[in-house]
Amino acid sequence: MKIGFDAMGGDHAPFETVKGAVEALEIVEGEIILFGDETKIEQELSKYQYDKQRISIFHTTEVIENDDKPVKAIKGKADSSMVVGLKKLRKNEIDAFVSAGNTGALLAGGLLKVGRIKGIGRPALCTIYPTMSGASVLVDAGANAEVKSRNLIEFAYMGSLYAERVIGISNPKVALVNIGAEETKGTSLYIETHQMLKDTDLNFVGNVEGRDVPSGKVDVIVADGFTGNIILKLTEGVALSIVGELKNQIMKNALGKIGGLLLKKNLSAFKRQLDYSEYGGAPLLGVNGLVVKAHGSSNAKAFKNAIKYAAIGVQTNLVSEISEKIKSLPVFEVKEEEL
Amino acid sequence: MKIGFDAMGGDHAPFETVKGAVEALEIVEGEIILFGDETKIEQELSKYQYDKQRISIFHTTEVIENDDKPVKAIKGKADSSMVVGLKKLRKNEIDAFVSAGNTGALLAGGLLKVGRIKGIGRPALCTIYPTMSGASVLVDAGANAEVKSRNLIEFAYMGSLYAERVIGISNPKVALVNIGAEETKGTSLYIETHQMLKDTDLNFVGNVEGRDVPSGKVDVIVADGFTGNIILKLTEGVALSIVGELKNQIMKNALGKIGGLLLKKNLSAFKRQLDYSEYGGAPLLGVNGLVVKAHGSSNAKAFKNAIKYAAIGVQTNLVSEISEKIKSLPVFEVKEEEL
Repeated sequence: MKIGFDAMGGDHAPFETVKGAVEALEIVEGEIILFGDETKIEQELSKYQYDKQRISIFHTTEVIENDDKPVKAIKGKADSSMVVGLKKLRKNEIDAFVSAGNTGALLAGGLLKVGRIKGIGRPALCTIYPTMSGASVLVDAGANAEVKSRNLIEFAYMGSLYAERVIGISNPKVALVNIGAEETKGTSLYIETHQMLKDTDLNFVGNVEGRDVPSGKVDVIVADGFTGNIILKLTEGVALSIVGELKNQIMKNALGKIGGLLLKKNLSAFKRQLDYSEYGGAPLLGVNGLVVKAHGSSNAKAFKNAIKYAAIGVQTNLVSEISEKIKSLPVFEVKEEEL
Repeated sequence: MKIGFDAMGGDHAPFETVKGAVEALEIVEGEIILFGDETKIEQELSKYQYDKQRISIFHTTEVIENDDKPVKAIKGKADSSMVVGLKKLRKNEIDAFVSAGNTGALLAGGLLKVGRIKGIGRPALCTIYPTMSGASVLVDAGANAEVKSRNLIEFAYMGSLYAERVIGISNPKVALVNIGAEETKGTSLYIETHQMLKDTDLNFVGNVEGRDVPSGKVDVIVADGFTGNIILKLTEGVALSIVGELKNQIMKNALGKIGGLLLKKNLSAFKRQLDYSEYGGAPLLGVNGLVVKAHGSSNAKAFKNAIKYAAIGVQTNLVSEISEKIKSLPVFEVKEEEL
């Protein structure tokens, strides 16, 4: 197995990317190919002891920056770490490509350089949503602000396969985000999608309201990318606010500080449960190759885990599983131009 | 001032409603009129000492239940506490009407029995969103799943007036919920609305992402009712999950319990900040009278506060302020049928 990795992507590249790649060797099999500036990467690599057979560098001269316009960057920066990596993925010279670079560019690059799976209208970002009882999968986390009902059905199938194959949840419970439990709730798009989901062979359990999203009651949360992105970022914001305020209360006075000290070990278990870096990356499902988006602020641990889940996706043939499933569905027998 | 109050609305009526009304006498001026079953209300009232000049009962024989169909209930249950209260509001026999009953019915009743303010297309639920630095206002919290850009502009004006007059925030910062800071982000509806908001005389500060919603950086959060409802309920869900897990960690072992005990006083300050019942109610802005929706699970404290904010809304002439503002706006010079 060969995992391609954008060594220049993310806020702390190449320090955290290279460190993450070295650490990932302990938990994944096969080889990691680092795309980026050879000199800079070698300088970082020289800090570590690792199996030199298992990490190689593919030198590229350009970097897509966070403020680059996505499509323009993909078309214009042909020798960037991201574009070169995606091209190698298309040619099957690598089995997956992980990047923490410009999200819009990676989405555009996935479409333009790797291409869609036949039958899929819109690839979607499928992210792990940490809950108190484990992990749910949220799809779409922000790739498509505007969608049609058939796109939401695709998201449901892709999310269900990801939950089952990569996260290991058997017969995942799929739910549609909505503003009420009743099937008549929400916008006309959501009402129509609810009816269509009932007719699929998915384990569709109905609507899930905002209040129940963090409970872990359902395994796959289906949403348009506008709503999904707000869910993901709002959850992060609320958790940060509450944890920040908890710290303030602990530091407020002497009693609080002693109390906080006694609770330290328990609170660190608690903090781990909220930790996004345990999962590290969100695959862009629906493109014809395994593209994984890591968070821009990822540290080495997050990169290690993004690489780990990419490797599981390769081992479980996630992309071809999606392709086979989509082919088998009568609901997807529509003309390509309708996509 | 006369505040009408649906004594039969909510999960714990009439016990918590009547208790809340009695407690509200301490903080509001004027009179409270309880709509509902006279016998039941008198039985509850007999438990308390209070100024009998200031609470009266308007006997009604029917109750709109939570599972009643909204429009059917409003049309069919003419002698329900909710319908009678709304009719009294329309006739200006009361100055405001507070209810924790069936949300859909209250929205439908506001439209059908009280009517819209001239120029307003869609009334919206305007709720307080507690943040770590105080309170923001979220509008629409769920009255309208599908909206047009001009509805969002109305929401922005109404939310801004509510924040200024009732909550007391001067020159409130108004922001549009979105999935990125750039004005080109989001759906076509949100992109168009962003441009329209820039042209208003509101203190529009741009988009606010999910991550920043809980920060209190902005005072008025404008969203369609689908997104707004998910924001409100998700925030509640995440907060409950985290606080629940914090309790688990405190109770996990002896050290945790001692730590929790030492932190008890500080943590209760923390809990108060998250407490929705401090604000109690969400006005349905845009109807031609002050209708306030209280949470179905409200306790007496939440009802007391809902009555308090309704009284402030009356004192500050919120409804006529909205009416005057809307009249003055060139952007609202559209034909009634376009609404």
